[in-house]
Amino acid sequence: MTDFTATRALFDLPDGLTYLDGNSLGPMAKAVPDRVGHAIRSEWGQELIRAWNSAGWMEMPDRLGDRIAPLIGAAPGTVSTGDTLSIKVHQALSAALSLTDRKVILSDTGNFPTDLYIAQGIVDALDRGLELRCVAPEEIEAHMTDEIAVLMLTEVDYRTGRRHDMAHLSRIAREQGIVTLWDLAHSAGAFPVDSAAHADFAVGCTYKYLNSGPGGPAFIAVPDAVADRIDPALPGWLGHAAPFDFDRDYRPAQAARRFRIGTPPILQMAALDAALDAWDGVSMQDVRSRSLALSQRLIAGVEADCPSLTLASPREDAHRGSQVSFRHPQAYAICQALIAHDVIGDFRAPDILRFGITPLYIGEAEIDAAIATMARIMQDRLYEDPRFQTRQAVT
Amino acid sequence: MTDFTATRALFDLPDGLTYLDGNSLGPMAKAVPDRVGHAIRSEWGQELIRAWNSAGWMEMPDRLGDRIAPLIGAAPGTVSTGDTLSIKVHQALSAALSLTDRKVILSDTGNFPTDLYIAQGIVDALDRGLELRCVAPEEIEAHMTDEIAVLMLTEVDYRTGRRHDMAHLSRIAREQGIVTLWDLAHSAGAFPVDSAAHADFAVGCTYKYLNSGPGGPAFIAVPDAVADRIDPALPGWLGHAAPFDFDRDYRPAQAARRFRIGTPPILQMAALDAALDAWDGVSMQDVRSRSLALSQRLIAGVEADCPSLTLASPREDAHRGSQVSFRHPQAYAICQALIAHDVIGDFRAPDILRFGITPLYIGEAEIDAAIATMARIMQDRLYEDPRFQTRQAVT
Repeated sequence: MTDFTATRALFDLPDGLTYLDGNSLGPMAKAVPDRVGHAIRSEWGQELIRAWNSAGWMEMPDRLGDRIAPLIGAAPGTVSTGDTLSIKVHQALSAALSLTDRKVILSDTGNFPTDLYIAQGIVDALDRGLELRCVAPEEIEAHMTDEIAVLMLTEVDYRTGRRHDMAHLSRIAREQGIVTLWDLAHSAGAFPVDSAAHADFAVGCTYKYLNSGPGGPAFIAVPDAVADRIDPALPGWLGHAAPFDFDRDYRPAQAARRFRIGTPPILQMAALDAALDAWDGVSMQDVRSRSLALSQRLIAGVEADCPSLTLASPREDAHRGSQVSFRHPQAYAICQALIAHDVIGDFRAPDILRFGITPLYIGEAEIDAAIATMARIMQDRLYEDPRFQTRQAVT
Repeated sequence: MTDFTATRALFDLPDGLTYLDGNSLGPMAKAVPDRVGHAIRSEWGQELIRAWNSAGWMEMPDRLGDRIAPLIGAAPGTVSTGDTLSIKVHQALSAALSLTDRKVILSDTGNFPTDLYIAQGIVDALDRGLELRCVAPEEIEAHMTDEIAVLMLTEVDYRTGRRHDMAHLSRIAREQGIVTLWDLAHSAGAFPVDSAAHADFAVGCTYKYLNSGPGGPAFIAVPDAVADRIDPALPGWLGHAAPFDFDRDYRPAQAARRFRIGTPPILQMAALDAALDAWDGVSMQDVRSRSLALSQRLIAGVEADCPSLTLASPREDAHRGSQVSFRHPQAYAICQALIAHDVIGDFRAPDILRFGITPLYIGEAEIDAAIATMARIMQDRLYEDPRFQTRQAVT
């Protein structure tokens, strides 16, 4: 049984703060400052260029991939870290399209915008009759015909927390000869994932449930049998089979290593490395069980005490990721009022209030505090205060 | 007059070490650890998600671009930071190709491999008759005909330090209707650059002469008149005009902001921010003058004391960047022997020894130490020691 009191002790959270936004930016693990400080002062500061060998910097993207692999059900050696999720989506979708002669990329309107922007960018750039077809999430299955080249979905909707049935859709995809690309941004670290079984390509980010810090590296997971068939669309020198031969021609490195591009961001990777320590000995099944219990508690409490908020997330556990969302026309102002009262969730346009459920460092006390604060804000209409109405750049 | 004693005091270099590899990885400025520590402990740790607004994280890619702009002769608001140089090359070349109907990308055999890999990747992916034409550096001018779509060059050759005449070639390019893309990896922070005058697109990295640390963000500089015509090939959500509207369709942000892609790597950016402080009050003309004096001193000393080393860099100042390279069949072993004797340069296959000249933190003493150590290694053939013959992963 995972000891969540022990994992909670690994994180540094400000006193009195109820942080329900770990689905947007995970908090700082206590091990991070010293680990990054060591990378800066001892490795960079003292070893300088030698640290690429002596401190293992050059292997970090792969070593961290191997640490993420068990958390997403991927095999060792099949996960590469680096860049941002947008870039990983580009790499994965370009690769997926190269495996088929079909023309249609099927996605849904619940996908995160950057995935759709990147996909449309590829469609426009390649100019060879490709089409990005976006349908409602519940219509995906009906659209999975032999016309579809790639099924590109984010497993969990960033606004509502609605979760696709990845195993089911991937099984249909396999039957229909459709290549699958799953964005695990809101899955990795949120609940068990079996990406090796269900995804030809899986991508995700590490700064949400994996707590790597602002702008932490993204990941891409590709089983060897798929990876070995890919000529990367972004063939950077560190994805070359022998980067330091400085060949004029590109030869891809083995397996997922070919999805490396440029020089890895070592400081962000040191932070990720430290953050991943919190997962040692943690059962993702336990995380899921506790996440569901906490989610149910939040839903029940808010529905009882804040009747003007409407549940935006699926009520059924199996259809929900590890976040709970509510709708309200004043969602933005309510979110600001919550923040002013030390309860942090976030807002997604036009009317969604999101709360991330992250058992590694939150429990019943935080859920109850959030419910009580929200109840007060709604009952006393504190959100009507003009200072909560002004929209900031980042929501 | 720039006070190089004062700039030297801003850097932390290990005692007794002669560091002539700042053209590969600049050293740690003393301000870096606390700045990054602050970003981690106070901003991330205490502000958490709020720091995107309260700590100005979301503006960092542009603010840092504005700090780099004067160092490369770019106008404010025209430089965007983030990602890796490979990605910036991809963005710039894709954009450059969209401005012309011509088919040939002209580059040279002295370009850094990743630039050529990325270019070939675009040629292959777009599959519309584009061609990457690589000629010898000295033949570039003769190949600049009206057949050429884009001139894509790295100003300074990473092996020899040979420097193109950027102003001259760009003038010809303009006459011939050729779009220019300059990689300033070995120029930014090395000597004065006038990218606004000479480059339609300029890209570069910050971890060499700008000392941002391992895997620091890259930059792209595009004058507004050019940027405003570009539909980015990698349309990430943070290059959207209104990212937090989460529109289904991409609309590019203003000017160079559209070259932002995903979530910026805040820890690396904090390091870059601190490192850039060292440039406050520094005249790039002074840096160049001192770099040339130190380079001449190194060339004269090595030629006098190590006759078996052949100068690989151009002898004429105007044709050389801020590095000095020598050739020797045993270059790798000599480099290892130098490192063992606390003189750090680096090796580039097959036979090049490189030394970066970085006046911000090295002076005559370091040059003389390098010459004396190299003379001893060559005279006593210390490089023949078997332990210097084994090739490491990173050279």
